[in-house]
Amino acid sequence: MKKISDFNGVCDTDCPVARANDIIGGKWTTLIIRDLLSGKKRYSELARSLAGISPRMLAARLDMLCGAGLVAKTVYPTVPPKTEYELTDAGKRIEPVIAAMAEFGSKLR
Amino acid sequence: MKKISDFNGVCDTDCPVARANDIIGGKWTTLIIRDLLSGKKRYSELARSLAGISPRMLAARLDMLCGAGLVAKTVYPTVPPKTEYELTDAGKRIEPVIAAMAEFGSKLR
Repeated sequence: MKKISDFNGVCDTDCPVARANDIIGGKWTTLIIRDLLSGKKRYSELARSLAGISPRMLAARLDMLCGAGLVAKTVYPTVPPKTEYELTDAGKRIEPVIAAMAEFGSKLR
Repeated sequence: MKKISDFNGVCDTDCPVARANDIIGGKWTTLIIRDLLSGKKRYSELARSLAGISPRMLAARLDMLCGAGLVAKTVYPTVPPKTEYELTDAGKRIEPVIAAMAEFGSKLR
């Protein structure tokens, strides 16, 4: 089991945990990344999977993730236009966080 | 690097990622757990370390973590009374999530 001591970063105001938290700390962001880990998704697929998320929140989170270089957006010039989202290589580096959350969550009663 | 496929849980509405997210998904909760991973802390130590957190928010997050059995609270009958918080065994299982976040955050530009 990976330990915090395996990471020798200094925990001050520029703490890497805080930096990661700023990006993936929100409820919906984590679940969007979880969904994209299984591959490219259309906006409608994400909206269906994330029960309770508003269209505005989903669009805002996807824009933030794209802006952070963690998700790539592809728009296909079909009628109507088709939009797909996928994790970039940098975005795929979040996988160990999501896997560790899955492991922790599976042990919660 | 741990992969989501290492976890064979089904990702439906009772998804373990979502369950973990419900508890440790908030900004301050992650940072409180980060601080408690280095050992027992007094309320005042947490308040100082978490720049910007309101006393009410800190108390509410600590109550939630205690209610979830992830943090234990000890009140010493001194004058004034001294209160300490520490992770329970169940709480320490969050460490791999925080370590994975630290590793991801350290690579963010």
